[in-house]
Amino acid sequence: MPGKRPITPELRTELKTGAFVILLLAAMLSATLASASTLLRGTGDLAIIIERASGAVQIVETTGNTRIGRVAGLGDLSHASAVFSRDGRYAYVFGRDGGLSKVDLLEAKLVTRVLQSGNSIGGAISQDGRLVAVSNYQPGGVKIFDAADLSLVADIPAEYGDGLRSKVIGLVDAPGQRFVFSLWDAGETWVVEMRDPAKPVIRKFKDIGRNPYDGLITPDGRFYIAGLFGEDGMALLDLWHLDKGVERILPGYGKGEQALPVYKMPHLEGWAVAGDRAFVPAVGHHEVLVMDTKTWREVGRIPVQGQPVFVMARPDGRQIWVNFAFPRNDKIQVIDSESLTIIRTLTPGKGVLHMEFEPRGEEVWVSVRDADQVHVYDTASLERRTVLPAHKPSGIFMTARAHRIGL
Amino acid sequence: MPGKRPITPELRTELKTGAFVILLLAAMLSATLASASTLLRGTGDLAIIIERASGAVQIVETTGNTRIGRVAGLGDLSHASAVFSRDGRYAYVFGRDGGLSKVDLLEAKLVTRVLQSGNSIGGAISQDGRLVAVSNYQPGGVKIFDAADLSLVADIPAEYGDGLRSKVIGLVDAPGQRFVFSLWDAGETWVVEMRDPAKPVIRKFKDIGRNPYDGLITPDGRFYIAGLFGEDGMALLDLWHLDKGVERILPGYGKGEQALPVYKMPHLEGWAVAGDRAFVPAVGHHEVLVMDTKTWREVGRIPVQGQPVFVMARPDGRQIWVNFAFPRNDKIQVIDSESLTIIRTLTPGKGVLHMEFEPRGEEVWVSVRDADQVHVYDTASLERRTVLPAHKPSGIFMTARAHRIGL
Repeated sequence: MPGKRPITPELRTELKTGAFVILLLAAMLSATLASASTLLRGTGDLAIIIERASGAVQIVETTGNTRIGRVAGLGDLSHASAVFSRDGRYAYVFGRDGGLSKVDLLEAKLVTRVLQSGNSIGGAISQDGRLVAVSNYQPGGVKIFDAADLSLVADIPAEYGDGLRSKVIGLVDAPGQRFVFSLWDAGETWVVEMRDPAKPVIRKFKDIGRNPYDGLITPDGRFYIAGLFGEDGMALLDLWHLDKGVERILPGYGKGEQALPVYKMPHLEGWAVAGDRAFVPAVGHHEVLVMDTKTWREVGRIPVQGQPVFVMARPDGRQIWVNFAFPRNDKIQVIDSESLTIIRTLTPGKGVLHMEFEPRGEEVWVSVRDADQVHVYDTASLERRTVLPAHKPSGIFMTARAHRIGL
Repeated sequence: MPGKRPITPELRTELKTGAFVILLLAAMLSATLASASTLLRGTGDLAIIIERASGAVQIVETTGNTRIGRVAGLGDLSHASAVFSRDGRYAYVFGRDGGLSKVDLLEAKLVTRVLQSGNSIGGAISQDGRLVAVSNYQPGGVKIFDAADLSLVADIPAEYGDGLRSKVIGLVDAPGQRFVFSLWDAGETWVVEMRDPAKPVIRKFKDIGRNPYDGLITPDGRFYIAGLFGEDGMALLDLWHLDKGVERILPGYGKGEQALPVYKMPHLEGWAVAGDRAFVPAVGHHEVLVMDTKTWREVGRIPVQGQPVFVMARPDGRQIWVNFAFPRNDKIQVIDSESLTIIRTLTPGKGVLHMEFEPRGEEVWVSVRDADQVHVYDTASLERRTVLPAHKPSGIFMTARAHRIGL
């Protein structure tokens, strides 16, 4: 054994330095491990909640119904929506101010943000997940970006008539690497095929009706339907047979009734198909319209307590949930899709802005703006299970949308 | 400044030890960082490929179509299938030997494995993701496990007649926290409601027909259909209206034809619904049967080149892909769901055992057992895009199944 060495001041300094380095490395190691274990998780049960007034999104998980992160700095998020990368890790958030933000849900950080127009109204992600499209009001058109770095891939101005540009609404993805959208001012629907991103192939359908205000696509991606604000009715396009052109459906559904002032434009994005019935909001009426999806004819209408905004089917199609425009936006009505009767009226509180079902339908998340809360309901008992705080919450979007056509 | 200290052998030893510790920690830190960056990824585009002969699963991702891991030690994986946790991180693999394995796709490791029976044939995960059920041949019945740790929650022996136990087949999940399955020997379908895991509520339907061999559920979770092997026909149960009981459909579909020896039992799990048509394999015939999903009556039959095994719709319902039993199992036929004609016959190679569509349908993965390969096809051009090596691949399962009813 070597003999003992006297502890000199120099040796003490060296030992201290060594110990410090070791402690520092141990701390770094433990921080890395902690961070890795926080981040290491599946993304299938994640969701974002838009906090519209603060330009932020909350990141939540729907298994334990807890908040796991928050990302701010996303600009004006009134009327914001989102789509997801096919791996479920990234959310693409479309802000009202033309901002397009790519958010990393695992690291809870903003990856990239581009201010791509002056005023926009939603977007879509291509079938293969490689392209993100945004529909713009000002300047009117659609811009398409690389999903990886948000670099511009294609710019499609919504030109019509004599050098005019239209606001674009109702943008959805469709099978065959296509995007479909409508022109509010022009009354047109366009189908853009992006198989070769350098050469978009555009097909235009004119005279679809006055002022299309939103569009939807059937869950199988076959039928695109634009709702019309300028007249009662909707415009149907069969994407399997473009040569058939656009067909007008539900013509004059408000005939003989006094249309009410429309306080909030209804949404079609969250429409409802249950079995062979489709449920859509009637614009300016306290009614939900029921169509047969085989004939696209009206087969019923359900009186509700206000002007419907979102009309959404529970994923199994057994229930239809409806929220409403101001001043009756404190309530939700739940409709039985078979008997077409209202089975429950819930009163979550003022400003019920959005609802999102968990992918297999066991729970539904509801944003209640004025209460600064998100409520989670059990869809079997219709009881409230969880209340989460959120600052002026609006849209709620779950990563399972990544795997659906048109969402 | 302190004076220099002579380097003694003792000091050298100490310094060496200190340096070694520092290097060791640095190596650990860097390994942790590397590992974290490998693991940190979304789970929405993951899939597993069963390597049936080696008791292993490959883990792949469907964005770049690459292999990212492999987990072995899962026992006998002939006829194996899998379901996924709702966050997409874990696969539950059901082996033929009664083994139930929970695999972590991010860390590529086996988390837990239980040998829960002598012989089993597939399983399902509950609507809320908290329960995993397995259907057993020997001893006949269903066992239900906690998805977290695979501890036994409920044991449901498939008893019938005078102390007999039946093989169980066609197990699926259904909305309302239910499992549905059928009894091969007894000719019964059972519905088990697991809202209170301690008190399964079982409802039995008898005399559904001879030897149900597999079951399926419509994508909305409403209709359960058992295929019958002991007679031509299928047994339909409306889960919205259990009181209506089981109805026989497609009776005598093989009438007047000579049934062929059945080399491989067809599967119904991967059945096909496109619009209002359902496509199912005819047992013992070179035909695909077409039903109207509103009336459940036969509306057509499509001659194909062999005995169909899997009949699967592209997620948009535009194409139906069919593989076949030995000896014609080297081919796939692609059917146009509208014209009911075969638009392409592909020849991937001997032993085409399974097909799995990416969730929005742009590509389909095909296992080609005898070639030790998995092929990925572009479903628009029907061209092969990628070939991946795999050892005797059979089932391919993507995490997007976590968000579907009945898969």
